[in-house]
Amino acid sequence: MDNWLSTLITATPTDGYNLAVKMSRVAVKLTQGDAAIRDKLRPDYAENADSLIAVSQVVATHFATVAAANGYWK
Amino acid sequence: MDNWLSTLITATPTDGYNLAVKMSRVAVKLTQGDAAIRDKLRPDYAENADSLIAVSQVVATHFATVAAANGYWK
Amino acid sequence: MDNWLSTLITATPTDGYNLAVKMSRVAVKLTQGDAAIRDKLRPDYAENADSLIAVSQVVATHFATVAAANGYWK
Amino acid sequence: MDNWLSTLITATPTDGYNLAVKMSRVAVKLTQGDAAIRDKLRPDYAENADSLIAVSQVVATHFATVAAANGYWK
Amino acid sequence: MDNWLSTLITATPTDGYNLAVKMSRVAVKLTQGDAAIRDKLRPDYAENADSLIAVSQVVATHFATVAAANGYWK
Amino acid sequence: MDNWLSTLITATPTDGYNLAVKMSRVAVKLTQGDAAIRDKLRPDYAENADSLIAVSQVVATHFATVAAANGYWK
Repeated sequence: MDNWLSTLITATPTDGYNLAVKMSRVAVKLTQGDAAIRDKLRPDYAENADSLIAVSQVVATHFATVAAANGYWK
Repeated sequence: MDNWLSTLITATPTDGYNLAVKMSRVAVKLTQGDAAIRDKLRPDYAENADSLIAVSQVVATHFATVAAANGYWK
Repeated sequence: MDNWLSTLITATPTDGYNLAVKMSRVAVKLTQGDAAIRDKLRPDYAENADSLIAVSQVVATHFATVAAANGYWK
Repeated sequence: MDNWLSTLITATPTDGYNLAVKMSRVAVKLTQGDAAIRDKLRPDYAENADSLIAVSQVVATHFATVAAANGYWK
Repeated sequence: MDNWLSTLITATPTDGYNLAVKMSRVAVKLTQGDAAIRDKLRPDYAENADSLIAVSQVVATHFATVAAANGYWK
Repeated sequence: MDNWLSTLITATPTDGYNLAVKMSRVAVKLTQGDAAIRDKLRPDYAENADSLIAVSQVVATHFATVAAANGYWK
Protein backbone atom coordinates (compact mmCIF):
# COMPACT_ATOMS: atom_id res chain seq x y z
CA MET A 1 0.00 0.00 0.00
CA ASP A 2 1.27 3.44 -0.86
CA ASN A 3 1.21 6.49 1.43
CA TRP A 4 -2.36 5.94 2.63
CA LEU A 5 -1.80 7.71 5.97
CA SER A 6 -0.33 11.05 5.08
CA THR A 7 -1.54 12.83 8.19
CA LEU A 8 -3.42 12.25 11.44
CA ILE A 9 -4.97 15.72 11.26
CA THR A 10 -8.67 15.85 10.43
CA ALA A 11 -11.20 18.65 10.23
CA THR A 12 -13.63 17.25 12.77
CA PRO A 13 -13.89 14.52 15.42
CA THR A 14 -16.21 12.64 13.07
CA ASP A 15 -13.53 12.63 10.39
CA GLY A 16 -11.05 11.52 13.02
CA TYR A 17 -13.31 8.66 13.98
CA ASN A 18 -13.61 7.57 10.37
CA LEU A 19 -9.83 7.68 10.06
CA ALA A 20 -9.58 5.46 13.15
CA VAL A 21 -11.90 2.95 11.48
CA LYS A 22 -9.68 2.95 8.41
CA MET A 23 -6.56 2.53 10.54
CA SER A 24 -8.11 -0.49 12.25
CA ARG A 25 -8.74 -2.14 8.90
CA VAL A 26 -5.34 -1.62 7.31
CA ALA A 27 -3.55 -3.88 9.80
CA VAL A 28 -5.88 -6.68 8.73
CA LYS A 29 -5.04 -6.06 5.07
CA LEU A 30 -1.32 -6.04 5.81
CA THR A 31 -1.62 -9.35 7.68
CA GLN A 32 -3.98 -11.07 5.25
CA GLY A 33 -3.08 -9.70 1.82
CA ASP A 34 -5.52 -11.88 -0.11
CA ALA A 35 -8.73 -9.91 -0.69
CA ALA A 36 -10.67 -13.07 -1.51
CA ILE A 37 -9.87 -14.58 1.89
CA ARG A 38 -10.74 -11.31 3.63
CA ASP A 39 -14.10 -11.24 1.85
CA LYS A 40 -14.75 -14.81 2.89
CA LEU A 41 -14.01 -13.91 6.52
CA ARG A 42 -16.33 -10.91 6.54
CA PRO A 43 -19.47 -12.70 7.82
CA ASP A 44 -17.34 -14.29 10.55
CA TYR A 45 -16.97 -10.94 12.25
CA ALA A 46 -19.74 -8.78 10.77
CA GLU A 47 -22.38 -11.18 12.02
CA ASN A 48 -20.73 -11.96 15.34
CA ALA A 49 -21.35 -9.71 18.32
CA ASP A 50 -18.06 -10.37 20.08
CA SER A 51 -16.07 -9.73 16.91
CA LEU A 52 -17.87 -6.45 16.36
CA ILE A 53 -17.09 -5.39 19.91
CA ALA A 54 -13.42 -6.30 19.31
CA VAL A 55 -13.41 -4.17 16.16
CA SER A 56 -14.84 -1.32 18.21
CA GLN A 57 -12.00 -1.75 20.72
CA VAL A 58 -9.40 -1.34 18.01
CA VAL A 59 -11.18 1.76 16.71
CA ALA A 60 -11.23 3.22 20.23
CA THR A 61 -7.48 2.72 20.56
CA HIS A 62 -6.74 4.39 17.24
CA PHE A 63 -9.22 7.18 17.95
CA ALA A 64 -7.34 8.03 21.14
CA THR A 65 -4.22 8.58 19.04
CA VAL A 66 -5.99 10.60 16.38
CA ALA A 67 -7.71 12.74 19.01
CA ALA A 68 -4.41 13.50 20.74
CA ALA A 69 -2.85 14.38 17.38
CA ASN A 70 -5.61 16.89 16.80
CA GLY A 71 -5.39 18.47 20.25
CA TYR A 72 -8.86 17.01 20.83
CA TRP A 73 -10.20 19.48 18.21
CA LYS A 74 -10.45 22.20 20.82
CA MET B 1 -23.63 8.73 9.10
CA ASP B 2 -23.43 12.49 9.07
CA ASN B 3 -21.43 14.65 11.51
CA TRP B 4 -22.52 12.73 14.61
CA LEU B 5 -19.39 13.61 16.60
CA SER B 6 -19.08 17.35 16.37
CA THR B 7 -17.15 17.76 19.59
CA LEU B 8 -15.62 15.78 22.46
CA ILE B 9 -16.46 18.53 24.93
CA THR B 10 -19.26 17.76 27.38
CA ALA B 11 -20.74 19.62 30.32
CA THR B 12 -20.15 16.90 32.89
CA PRO B 13 -18.28 13.61 33.34
CA THR B 14 -21.64 11.84 33.15
CA ASP B 15 -22.27 13.36 29.75
CA GLY B 16 -18.77 12.38 28.75
CA TYR B 17 -19.44 8.83 29.80
CA ASN B 18 -22.62 8.74 27.76
CA LEU B 19 -20.67 10.04 24.78
CA ALA B 20 -18.13 7.25 25.26
CA VAL B 21 -20.97 4.72 25.17
CA LYS B 22 -22.19 6.24 21.89
CA MET B 23 -18.67 6.19 20.45
CA SER B 24 -18.35 2.51 21.29
CA ARG B 25 -21.53 1.73 19.39
CA VAL B 26 -20.84 3.65 16.20
CA ALA B 27 -17.91 1.45 15.19
CA VAL B 28 -20.26 -1.50 15.29
CA LYS B 29 -22.73 0.31 13.04
CA LEU B 30 -19.99 1.24 10.60
CA THR B 31 -18.81 -2.38 10.44
CA GLN B 32 -22.26 -4.00 10.30
CA GLY B 33 -24.45 -1.54 8.41
CA ASP B 34 -27.55 -3.73 8.41
CA ALA B 35 -29.77 -2.74 11.34
CA ALA B 36 -31.72 -5.99 11.13
CA ILE B 37 -28.58 -8.05 11.65
CA ARG B 38 -27.48 -5.81 14.51
CA ASP B 39 -30.88 -6.27 16.17
CA LYS B 40 -30.59 -10.01 15.77
CA LEU B 41 -27.16 -9.95 17.43
CA ARG B 42 -28.31 -7.92 20.40
CA PRO B 43 -29.17 -10.84 22.72
CA ASP B 44 -25.81 -12.42 21.85
CA TYR B 45 -24.02 -9.71 23.79
CA ALA B 46 -26.72 -8.15 26.01
CA GLU B 47 -27.35 -11.50 27.68
CA ASN B 48 -23.73 -12.61 27.81
CA ALA B 49 -21.54 -11.58 30.72
CA ASP B 50 -18.24 -11.67 28.83
CA SER B 51 -19.65 -9.61 25.97
CA LEU B 52 -20.96 -7.00 28.38
CA ILE B 53 -17.54 -6.78 30.01
CA ALA B 54 -15.98 -6.34 26.58
CA VAL B 55 -18.41 -3.53 25.81
CA SER B 56 -17.42 -1.91 29.10
CA GLN B 57 -13.76 -2.14 28.05
CA VAL B 58 -14.45 -0.23 24.85
CA VAL B 59 -16.36 2.41 26.79
CA ALA B 60 -13.43 2.76 29.21
CA THR B 61 -11.04 3.35 26.34
CA HIS B 62 -13.23 6.01 24.76
CA PHE B 63 -13.93 7.61 28.13
CA ALA B 64 -10.20 8.08 28.66
CA THR B 65 -10.07 10.10 25.45
CA VAL B 66 -13.17 12.15 26.26
CA ALA B 67 -11.89 12.85 29.77
CA ALA B 68 -8.54 14.07 28.44
CA ALA B 69 -10.33 16.26 25.90
CA ASN B 70 -12.26 17.89 28.73
CA GLY B 71 -9.24 18.43 30.94
CA TYR B 72 -10.84 15.92 33.28
CA TRP B 73 -13.61 18.49 33.97
CA LYS B 74 -11.47 20.20 36.57
CA MET C 1 -29.37 7.12 35.19
CA ASP C 2 -29.07 10.62 36.52
CA ASN C 3 -25.82 12.53 37.12
CA TRP C 4 -24.02 9.59 38.78
CA LEU C 5 -20.55 10.80 37.76
CA SER C 6 -20.36 14.38 38.92
CA THR C 7 -16.57 14.44 39.27
CA LEU C 8 -13.47 12.31 38.75
CA ILE C 9 -11.79 13.88 41.77
CA THR C 10 -11.45 11.67 44.83
CA ALA C 11 -9.81 12.11 48.20
CA THR C 12 -7.52 9.10 47.98
CA PRO C 13 -6.25 6.54 45.45
CA THR C 14 -8.45 3.95 47.20
CA ASP C 15 -11.50 6.09 46.55
CA GLY C 16 -10.35 6.52 42.97
CA TYR C 17 -10.06 2.77 42.60
CA ASN C 18 -13.58 2.30 43.93
CA LEU C 19 -14.81 4.90 41.47
CA ALA C 20 -13.11 2.99 38.65
CA VAL C 21 -14.95 -0.16 39.74
CA LYS C 22 -18.23 1.75 39.61
CA MET C 23 -17.39 3.18 36.19
CA SER C 24 -16.72 -0.32 34.87
CA ARG C 25 -20.14 -1.48 36.01
CA VAL C 26 -22.25 1.36 34.65
CA ALA C 27 -21.49 0.52 31.01
CA VAL C 28 -22.93 -2.92 31.65
CA LYS C 29 -26.09 -1.40 33.11
CA LEU C 30 -26.45 0.96 30.16
CA THR C 31 -26.10 -1.95 27.72
CA GLN C 32 -28.29 -4.42 29.62
CA GLY C 33 -30.95 -2.33 31.30
CA ASP C 34 -32.86 -5.27 32.78
CA ALA C 35 -31.69 -5.83 36.36
CA ALA C 36 -33.18 -9.32 36.42
CA ILE C 37 -31.06 -10.40 33.47
CA ARG C 38 -27.96 -8.81 35.01
CA ASP C 39 -28.58 -10.71 38.25
CA LYS C 40 -28.95 -13.93 36.31
CA LEU C 41 -25.63 -13.29 34.56
CA ARG C 42 -23.75 -12.60 37.78
CA PRO C 43 -22.51 -16.16 38.44
CA ASP C 44 -21.37 -16.35 34.80
CA TYR C 45 -18.61 -13.86 35.54
CA ALA C 46 -18.27 -13.87 39.33
CA GLU C 47 -17.46 -17.57 39.32
CA ASN C 48 -15.32 -17.54 36.18
CA ALA C 49 -11.64 -16.72 36.42
CA ASP C 50 -11.30 -15.29 32.92
CA SER C 51 -14.31 -13.06 33.35
CA LEU C 52 -12.96 -11.73 36.63
CA ILE C 53 -9.65 -10.95 34.96
CA ALA C 54 -11.53 -9.14 32.19
CA VAL C 55 -13.40 -7.09 34.79
CA SER C 56 -10.06 -6.21 36.37
CA GLN C 57 -8.82 -5.04 32.96
CA VAL C 58 -11.71 -2.62 32.62
CA VAL C 59 -11.10 -1.32 36.12
CA ALA C 60 -7.42 -0.79 35.29
CA THR C 61 -8.35 1.27 32.23
CA HIS C 62 -10.75 3.47 34.17
CA PHE C 63 -8.33 3.79 37.07
CA ALA C 64 -5.72 5.21 34.69
CA THR C 65 -8.14 7.97 33.78
CA VAL C 66 -9.16 8.69 37.36
CA ALA C 67 -5.53 8.75 38.47
CA ALA C 68 -4.61 11.23 35.74
CA ALA C 69 -7.59 13.39 36.68
CA ASN C 70 -6.31 13.52 40.25
CA GLY C 71 -2.73 14.31 39.32
CA TYR C 72 -1.91 10.89 40.72
CA TRP C 73 -2.78 12.22 44.21
CA LYS C 74 0.66 13.70 44.60
CA MET D 1 -11.47 -3.26 52.20
CA ASP D 2 -10.03 -0.33 54.07
CA ASN D 3 -7.58 2.22 52.67
CA TRP D 4 -5.35 -0.36 50.96
CA LEU D 5 -4.12 2.07 48.30
CA SER D 6 -2.86 5.07 50.19
CA THR D 7 -0.40 6.17 47.51
CA LEU D 8 0.86 5.31 44.04
CA ILE D 9 4.36 6.42 44.93
CA THR D 10 6.93 3.66 45.35
CA ALA D 11 10.65 3.65 45.99
CA THR D 12 11.64 1.64 42.92
CA PRO D 13 10.17 0.37 39.64
CA THR D 14 10.19 -3.12 41.15
CA ASP D 15 8.02 -1.92 44.02
CA GLY D 16 5.78 -0.19 41.48
CA TYR D 17 5.44 -3.42 39.56
CA ASN D 18 4.48 -5.28 42.72
CA LEU D 19 1.90 -2.60 43.45
CA ALA D 20 0.48 -3.07 39.94
CA VAL D 21 0.13 -6.80 40.63
CA LYS D 22 -1.76 -6.01 43.82
CA MET D 23 -3.99 -3.51 42.01
CA SER D 24 -4.87 -6.13 39.42
CA ARG D 25 -5.97 -8.54 42.14
CA VAL D 26 -8.14 -6.21 44.18
CA ALA D 27 -10.71 -5.76 41.41
CA VAL D 28 -11.21 -9.50 41.44
CA LYS D 29 -11.76 -9.46 45.20
CA LEU D 30 -14.23 -6.61 44.92
CA THR D 31 -16.18 -8.49 42.23
CA GLN D 32 -16.04 -11.91 43.86
CA GLY D 33 -16.08 -11.27 47.60
CA ASP D 34 -16.14 -14.93 48.63
CA ALA D 35 -12.58 -16.07 49.33
CA ALA D 36 -13.58 -19.73 49.09
CA ILE D 37 -14.82 -19.27 45.52
CA ARG D 38 -11.70 -17.31 44.61
CA ASP D 39 -9.53 -20.11 45.98
CA LYS D 40 -11.49 -22.64 43.97
CA LEU D 41 -10.96 -20.59 40.81
CA ARG D 42 -7.23 -20.26 41.29
CA PRO D 43 -6.16 -23.32 39.26
CA ASP D 44 -8.47 -22.16 36.46
CA TYR D 45 -6.15 -19.26 35.74
CA ALA D 46 -2.87 -20.20 37.41
CA GLU D 47 -2.60 -23.33 35.30
CA ASN D 48 -3.93 -21.81 32.08
CA ALA D 49 -1.57 -20.01 29.74
CA ASP D 50 -4.14 -17.64 28.26
CA SER D 51 -5.41 -16.64 31.69
CA LEU D 52 -1.89 -15.92 32.87
CA ILE D 53 -1.29 -13.73 29.80
CA ALA D 54 -4.53 -11.89 30.55
CA VAL D 55 -3.38 -11.29 34.13
CA SER D 56 -0.13 -9.93 32.75
CA GLN D 57 -2.13 -7.54 30.53
CA VAL D 58 -3.93 -6.11 33.54
CA VAL D 59 -0.65 -5.70 35.38
CA ALA D 60 0.81 -3.87 32.38
CA THR D 61 -2.10 -1.45 32.36
CA HIS D 62 -1.79 -0.68 36.06
CA PHE D 63 1.99 -0.45 35.84
CA ALA D 64 1.63 2.28 33.20
CA THR D 65 -0.36 4.32 35.70
CA VAL D 66 2.01 3.68 38.58
CA ALA D 67 5.01 4.54 36.42
CA ALA D 68 3.45 7.83 35.33
CA ALA D 69 2.62 8.64 38.96
CA ASN D 70 6.26 8.17 39.87
CA GLY D 71 7.61 10.23 36.98
CA TYR D 72 9.05 6.97 35.69
CA TRP D 73 11.46 6.95 38.68
CA LYS D 74 13.84 9.23 36.84
CA MET E 1 17.85 -10.36 17.03
CA ASP E 2 20.29 -7.51 16.69
CA ASN E 3 19.45 -3.80 16.97
CA TRP E 4 16.31 -4.01 14.83
CA LEU E 5 14.63 -1.02 16.50
CA SER E 6 17.17 1.75 16.34
CA THR E 7 14.64 4.56 16.44
CA LEU E 8 10.91 5.26 16.72
CA ILE E 9 11.20 8.26 14.44
CA THR E 10 9.72 7.85 10.96
CA ALA E 11 9.28 10.19 8.02
CA THR E 12 5.51 9.80 7.72
CA PRO E 13 2.54 8.37 9.60
CA THR E 14 2.42 5.58 7.02
CA ASP E 15 5.99 4.62 7.85
CA GLY E 16 5.09 4.81 11.53
CA TYR E 17 2.19 2.46 10.95
CA ASN E 18 4.45 0.00 9.15
CA LEU E 19 6.87 0.18 12.05
CA ALA E 20 4.00 -0.59 14.44
CA VAL E 21 3.18 -3.68 12.38
CA LYS E 22 6.81 -4.80 12.63
CA MET E 23 6.84 -4.16 16.36
CA SER E 24 3.74 -6.30 16.81
CA ARG E 25 5.43 -9.20 15.04
CA VAL E 26 8.75 -9.19 16.85
CA ALA E 27 7.22 -10.14 20.20
CA VAL E 28 5.84 -13.24 18.53
CA LYS E 29 9.28 -14.12 17.17
CA LEU E 30 10.88 -13.61 20.58
CA THR E 31 8.30 -15.89 22.20
CA GLN E 32 8.27 -18.57 19.52
CA GLY E 33 11.79 -18.66 18.13
CA ASP E 34 11.19 -21.55 15.75
CA ALA E 35 10.38 -20.17 12.29
CA ALA E 36 8.93 -23.49 11.16
CA ILE E 37 6.36 -23.45 13.96
CA ARG E 38 5.52 -19.82 13.23
CA ASP E 39 4.96 -20.66 9.58
CA LYS E 40 2.71 -23.53 10.55
CA LEU E 41 0.66 -21.20 12.76
CA ARG E 42 0.21 -18.58 10.06
CA PRO E 43 -3.11 -19.87 8.65
CA ASP E 44 -4.45 -20.10 12.20
CA TYR E 45 -4.50 -16.34 12.44
CA ALA E 46 -4.33 -15.11 8.85
CA GLU E 47 -7.54 -16.94 7.99
CA ASN E 48 -9.33 -16.22 11.25
CA ALA E 49 -11.28 -13.01 11.64
CA ASP E 50 -10.91 -12.72 15.41
CA SER E 51 -7.17 -13.30 15.24
CA LEU E 52 -6.80 -10.63 12.59
CA ILE E 53 -8.72 -8.18 14.75
CA ALA E 54 -6.43 -9.06 17.68
CA VAL E 55 -3.39 -8.38 15.50
CA SER E 56 -4.90 -5.04 14.59
CA GLN E 57 -5.31 -4.26 18.30
CA VAL E 58 -1.62 -4.83 18.93
CA VAL E 59 -0.74 -2.62 15.97
CA ALA E 60 -3.00 0.12 17.33
CA THR E 61 -1.24 0.01 20.68
CA HIS E 62 2.22 0.23 19.13
CA PHE E 63 1.09 2.93 16.71
CA ALA E 64 0.02 5.10 19.64
CA THR E 65 3.56 4.93 20.96
CA VAL E 66 5.18 5.61 17.59
CA ALA E 67 2.83 8.53 16.96
CA ALA E 68 3.64 10.09 20.32
CA ALA E 69 7.37 9.63 19.65
CA ASN E 70 6.97 11.55 16.40
CA GLY E 71 4.96 14.37 17.90
CA TYR E 72 2.10 13.10 15.78
CA TRP E 73 4.04 14.22 12.66
CA LYS E 74 2.74 17.75 13.07
CA MET F 1 12.12 -11.98 43.10
CA ASP F 2 14.65 -9.39 44.13
CA ASN F 3 15.06 -5.93 42.59
CA TRP F 4 14.79 -7.14 38.99
CA LEU F 5 13.47 -3.83 37.67
CA SER F 6 15.90 -1.23 38.88
CA THR F 7 15.20 1.25 36.10
CA LEU F 8 13.05 1.78 33.03
CA ILE F 9 15.87 3.63 31.25
CA THR F 10 17.52 1.75 28.40
CA ALA F 11 20.20 2.68 25.90
CA THR F 12 18.16 1.99 22.78
CA PRO F 13 14.56 1.29 21.70
CA THR F 14 15.62 -2.31 21.05
CA ASP F 15 16.76 -2.65 24.66
CA GLY F 16 13.50 -1.04 25.75
CA TYR F 17 11.57 -3.58 23.74
CA ASN F 18 13.49 -6.43 25.34
CA LEU F 19 12.74 -4.96 28.74
CA ALA F 20 9.04 -4.87 27.84
CA VAL F 21 9.20 -8.56 26.96
CA LYS F 22 10.76 -9.28 30.34
CA MET F 23 8.14 -7.17 32.11
CA SER F 24 5.37 -9.12 30.39
CA ARG F 25 6.82 -12.40 31.65
CA VAL F 26 7.35 -11.47 35.28
CA ALA F 27 3.64 -11.08 36.00
CA VAL F 28 3.18 -14.66 34.88
CA LYS F 29 5.93 -15.83 37.22
CA LEU F 30 4.43 -13.89 40.13
CA THR F 31 1.01 -15.46 39.48
CA GLN F 32 2.24 -18.99 38.81
CA GLY F 33 5.29 -19.44 41.00
CA ASP F 34 5.88 -23.08 40.09
CA ALA F 35 8.45 -23.25 37.29
CA ALA F 36 7.48 -26.81 36.45
CA ILE F 37 3.89 -25.80 35.77
CA ARG F 38 5.04 -22.82 33.71
CA ASP F 39 7.24 -25.10 31.63
CA LYS F 40 4.35 -27.45 31.07
CA LEU F 41 2.18 -24.54 29.90
CA ARG F 42 4.77 -23.26 27.43
CA PRO F 43 3.53 -25.18 24.36
CA ASP F 44 -0.02 -24.03 25.16
CA TYR F 45 0.90 -20.50 24.19
CA ALA F 46 4.10 -20.83 22.17
CA GLU F 47 2.36 -23.02 19.63
CA ASN F 48 -0.93 -21.15 19.62
CA ALA F 49 -1.39 -18.16 17.35
CA ASP F 50 -3.95 -16.35 19.51
CA SER F 51 -1.84 -16.76 22.62
CA LEU F 52 1.20 -15.35 20.84
CA ILE F 53 -0.83 -12.35 19.71
CA ALA F 54 -1.99 -11.85 23.29
CA VAL F 55 1.62 -11.94 24.49
CA SER F 56 2.45 -9.34 21.87
CA GLN F 57 -0.37 -7.15 23.21
CA VAL F 58 1.11 -7.22 26.69
CA VAL F 59 4.53 -6.35 25.32
CA ALA F 60 3.02 -3.42 23.40
CA THR F 61 1.45 -2.08 26.59
CA HIS F 62 4.69 -2.30 28.55
CA PHE F 63 6.69 -0.88 25.65
CA ALA F 64 4.50 2.22 25.68
CA THR F 65 5.49 2.80 29.30
CA VAL F 66 9.18 2.14 28.71
CA ALA F 67 9.18 4.42 25.67
CA ALA F 68 7.58 7.26 27.62
CA ALA F 69 10.10 6.76 30.44
CA ASN F 70 12.91 7.18 27.94
CA GLY F 71 11.46 10.25 26.28
CA TYR F 72 11.06 8.07 23.20
CA TRP F 73 14.88 7.96 22.90
CA LYS F 74 14.89 11.27 21.09
